[in-house]
Amino acid sequence: MALIVQKYGGTSVANPERIKAVAEKVAVTRAAGHDLVVVVSAMSGETNRLLALATEVHPEPPARELDVLLATGEQVTIALLTMALHLRGYQARSYTGHQVHILTDNIHGRARIVDIDDVRVRSDLSHGRVVVVAGFQGVDQEGNITTLGRGGSDTTAVAMAAALEADECQIYTDVEGVYTSDPRIVPQARRLDRITVEEMLEMASLGAKVLQPRSVQFAGKYKVPLRVLSSFEEGPGTLIAHEENEMEQALISGIAFNRDEAKLTIMGVPDQPGVASQILGGVSDGNINVDMIVQNVGADGTTDFTFTVHRSDYQKARKILEGIAAKLSARGVTGDDKIVKISVVGVGMRSHTGIASTMFRTLAAEGINIQMISTSEIKISVVVEEKYLELAVRALHTAFGLDSGNGAE
Amino acid sequence: MALIVQKYGGTSVANPERIKAVAEKVAVTRAAGHDLVVVVSAMSGETNRLLALATEVHPEPPARELDVLLATGEQVTIALLTMALHLRGYQARSYTGHQVHILTDNIHGRARIVDIDDVRVRSDLSHGRVVVVAGFQGVDQEGNITTLGRGGSDTTAVAMAAALEADECQIYTDVEGVYTSDPRIVPQARRLDRITVEEMLEMASLGAKVLQPRSVQFAGKYKVPLRVLSSFEEGPGTLIAHEENEMEQALISGIAFNRDEAKLTIMGVPDQPGVASQILGGVSDGNINVDMIVQNVGADGTTDFTFTVHRSDYQKARKILEGIAAKLSARGVTGDDKIVKISVVGVGMRSHTGIASTMFRTLAAEGINIQMISTSEIKISVVVEEKYLELAVRALHTAFGLDSGNGAE
Repeated sequence: MALIVQKYGGTSVANPERIKAVAEKVAVTRAAGHDLVVVVSAMSGETNRLLALATEVHPEPPARELDVLLATGEQVTIALLTMALHLRGYQARSYTGHQVHILTDNIHGRARIVDIDDVRVRSDLSHGRVVVVAGFQGVDQEGNITTLGRGGSDTTAVAMAAALEADECQIYTDVEGVYTSDPRIVPQARRLDRITVEEMLEMASLGAKVLQPRSVQFAGKYKVPLRVLSSFEEGPGTLIAHEENEMEQALISGIAFNRDEAKLTIMGVPDQPGVASQILGGVSDGNINVDMIVQNVGADGTTDFTFTVHRSDYQKARKILEGIAAKLSARGVTGDDKIVKISVVGVGMRSHTGIASTMFRTLAAEGINIQMISTSEIKISVVVEEKYLELAVRALHTAFGLDSGNGAE
Repeated sequence: MALIVQKYGGTSVANPERIKAVAEKVAVTRAAGHDLVVVVSAMSGETNRLLALATEVHPEPPARELDVLLATGEQVTIALLTMALHLRGYQARSYTGHQVHILTDNIHGRARIVDIDDVRVRSDLSHGRVVVVAGFQGVDQEGNITTLGRGGSDTTAVAMAAALEADECQIYTDVEGVYTSDPRIVPQARRLDRITVEEMLEMASLGAKVLQPRSVQFAGKYKVPLRVLSSFEEGPGTLIAHEENEMEQALISGIAFNRDEAKLTIMGVPDQPGVASQILGGVSDGNINVDMIVQNVGADGTTDFTFTVHRSDYQKARKILEGIAAKLSARGVTGDDKIVKISVVGVGMRSHTGIASTMFRTLAAEGINIQMISTSEIKISVVVEEKYLELAVRALHTAFGLDSGNGAE
């Protein structure tokens, strides 16, 4: 008998019928004798419906109130799922973020979980109840409702699993696991049986939208065994493993990409210490996450400084950057929100040379110009024009032997 | 500078446009220098939408989870209204029932307010913020979400006004005040400038759906000055007054009616002490409110015992009553859910005879048979067949001189 945390996303609970199907899946696990905590998202479409209401009232809804509004989405789902479990004769109780005291910091819309009070949950479990928890939401120290940002329900599930020292955290999604690339772009993409936390982190943060990066980080930090599997199809899914040496050392695990990027360049800033932090400090004060950063040394004592941000932050970041440019007497600001980032990811990369050259050669052969390059221990990322996305991803998928049927795993 | 609690019902906040209109009304009061607490209901249609979702999942949704679900309705409204106030440049904060700790008992779906923690609200008011509170909802001592039942937002507003010792509690509705009868049934009905708490109680509990009876009781008990007025039309509304001797002593204030009644009779029960309490005890154990009660002494040592319940409780009450009938060896149970209750209400009645005879004579003249009669100090109620509702109400409205134009007030 194990303690399992299951998380069901928006499409899995999209309507009453699907919620009943989730209750069926939960019932099977419970009937097998396992203790169960279920974390759910808002019904798909609900968050967008609420956002639309908000923007009808206020073009830029204040963050505290937006969180109050959006938190209702998951609250609806927990109630409905718990009802469905009652109908099947299972004891169950729903809890909002504040009721199980998912304590977060006070950054509305992007809060981070600080602590979870597991007393109430453990008590319910010991009484044989299934515990149904609202994902995505928490409370700050003053009792204000916070949300964790899109995909935050994954983080809730992993944090709950960590707090309860659960045996496994199962993330149910609309895909059958983690793939070598997005099957919608690359028809030959294959499901991976296992992937390391590090690889998954790179894949997730690079836009392979199976799991939210923070949830994977959390899982890595607290050694929560994490499994991604489908709500709709039976199957083992993909285990996100913590012991790297258990793994087959595939050279490259997958080709990830991210459409939601935009790049900004501040030109002709003084090439001297402290400038980078002045630029990035200003941007992060605006609560904007910066992704890739590239700086070239210039010839005339000035330099160009380029970075990427989430596309939705582009206008805001550009405005901030223009202010900084004026202060630094920079030559100007340019930007482009029609770019994508494409990355090859794999722990095997560490011990192999030639990955970068294969990547660059493959793109060159397709006539694709590389605008930015950034590398880490287990990934190489490039920024290219948006129109090349499909072409680049498919070419790389083939070049690194990931196409199904060629047994590269 | 006064402290005012305003409450806006579902039709007043039915969509983003109306919510902005409410923000405008709130802004006017705030701009006049008053401190303001605003209590809101769910957007009209929302509670029914949620109920429909629930019954799709479970034919008889468990009460605890239904409360979790329904409470989201008001949470959406508080967020949107607060956003609309921000847009107008007003400082405002939204609070759910649990955030201002509206402590209730644990009867889900019909909870009663026990206490309100006003510390947070007072602190916000002292900082110049408009406080926006979710009506209809609270928490029990274990932190479970509770709801107060339909119309419970009125009770929230009055309780909030009592806790804060507000100068006035203004209930904004879709009507211009309290009328001598329902204008949809009686076109000659007139708005009353004032009405006593006692009269209002009788009117409200008899189905004049302007205010929830509990909110009027609450207002009476804590001497909260209560005013009913329209969200859509300018006007003074109706003041529910506490000092009876300030009032013009109208003979009859209005003709109230209630369509939502059903009657049940248990026949041939032993005519002996303790039987009534056995019958009603069983029914109230089922959490069913009983309204009128009539018992006739029988000839053969047995008696028939008749009472009315809310129509939605009819089937449940009938089932309970059949169990009780078997235990008491009663002759049987009959019932009718096609009845209405009609009442004449007025504090002036106390010092006048002849009201009852006028009432009965008027109904007889229209050929309407009276099935049950019940009286109090300030009202006389009769139960008649549902089809006679309009005829009876109009005839009585005329008979008691309430029609507009004849200056009876």
